[in-house]
Amino acid sequence: MESLHSNQNTGLMPYLVAISQILGIAVLAITGAWLSQYRGGFSWEGAQQFNVHPLCMVLGMVFLCGDALLVYRVFRNETKRATKILHGALHILALIISLVGIIAVFQFHSNSGIPHLYSLHSWLGIITFILYILQWIVGFLLFFVPGVAFTYRSRFKPVHEFFGLGLLLSAVATSLIGLTEKILFTLPNLYSKLPAEGILVNTLGLLLVAFGAVIAYILTREEWRRPPLPEEQALSMDFKTLTEGDSPTEP
Amino acid sequence: MESLHSNQNTGLMPYLVAISQILGIAVLAITGAWLSQYRGGFSWEGAQQFNVHPLCMVLGMVFLCGDALLVYRVFRNETKRATKILHGALHILALIISLVGIIAVFQFHSNSGIPHLYSLHSWLGIITFILYILQWIVGFLLFFVPGVAFTYRSRFKPVHEFFGLGLLLSAVATSLIGLTEKILFTLPNLYSKLPAEGILVNTLGLLLVAFGAVIAYILTREEWRRPPLPEEQALSMDFKTLTEGDSPTEP
Repeated sequence: MESLHSNQNTGLMPYLVAISQILGIAVLAITGAWLSQYRGGFSWEGAQQFNVHPLCMVLGMVFLCGDALLVYRVFRNETKRATKILHGALHILALIISLVGIIAVFQFHSNSGIPHLYSLHSWLGIITFILYILQWIVGFLLFFVPGVAFTYRSRFKPVHEFFGLGLLLSAVATSLIGLTEKILFTLPNLYSKLPAEGILVNTLGLLLVAFGAVIAYILTREEWRRPPLPEEQALSMDFKTLTEGDSPTEP
Repeated sequence: MESLHSNQNTGLMPYLVAISQILGIAVLAITGAWLSQYRGGFSWEGAQQFNVHPLCMVLGMVFLCGDALLVYRVFRNETKRATKILHGALHILALIISLVGIIAVFQFHSNSGIPHLYSLHSWLGIITFILYILQWIVGFLLFFVPGVAFTYRSRFKPVHEFFGLGLLLSAVATSLIGLTEKILFTLPNLYSKLPAEGILVNTLGLLLVAFGAVIAYILTREEWRRPPLPEEQALSMDFKTLTEGDSPTEP
């Protein structure tokens, strides 16, 4: 347990964080390049409105959400308050950008006479987004609103962490299904001949998986958790004593 | 840390294990029903040979692999040796069954003149399967072969656990892409009208995600780990003392 209270034992973490950022930027660059080079670029009108959807979802629900989860590991020497605000700010950005992406695809479907929410991609995607909003509301009420009892916070924290990583991985899985849908809609007869666009989209899928895997690895290393700062530690020790039923004034 | 050494603190675990088994059996039943009712059933010859693929992969790489991961949590009062043998036996079954599933789709592609390994589904699937074989080899050498130093075992165990769960979730993601491919190949114009087969396949996808999520939740609760039995505990205490550099004979 010693390592939890030491700032030094981060091992491979800085390298893995760097790799996650390279993967995340590669994912965004390839998504942008694919949609602008092969799919006609971006617009809020006409057929190109669809292209706003994958770009916004990958940026919001994958890249920004992934980075929001890393905040407590990366900024381990900042105050809890500062890291919490950064975590919230990244999630506000992620929420707004992915909402734009969802509006884009709903408007595109309506304008093109395509039914809404018929595919596995759309079912998993909308469930992931609704759970993300619920996670936002519950997380905000419990961790941002002042005066919520420590007991509730510490009891809910493991569930909040599980859903955070779970929703990121669900967003990655939804993206993979979406990529497959899009390539089969646009190149139904050509995909099996492995054209350049097919290779690009498959590579994008694998990079998305790699991004999710590296973030999951970093977050599930218990020894890489942000250790409490000295002033927080005193508080959490008192709290531990209190919740375990002993009087904190006892020797 | 007390809870790690207590057999009692399993909380919701038995209920979640039951839910995972209901989800797993539902996934197998729906896969079987879908392929036999809508896709012509199973055969090792002709067009129906394809249908062997999804059934074997869902049974091997998802259901049996998932259950193999639960062994140490569920059979927490059996000896380490017995649980290890059960873990290995389930993984042998999973390996054989998924190998049959992979051979089925390669033979089907060859006989139908369809190129191999062009899609994101096939790329992610083959990478997952190769990593699964590597995990098998390394896991066997480290944990089954007698005489491997405790130091190697305990250092590699967290990586083995991460890859175990990671490969299960990757198999689930690969299945979701595969379901989407299959439904778009067979009902390209009908899928968007949400026919019964579309609803069945979408539901199957969501149940696969739920199965993976429940297993991931059970496995990531530190307090639900299998506690060492009294005789193992004595050994691991000695080992801990040894590795931490103190002499075990010191008071």
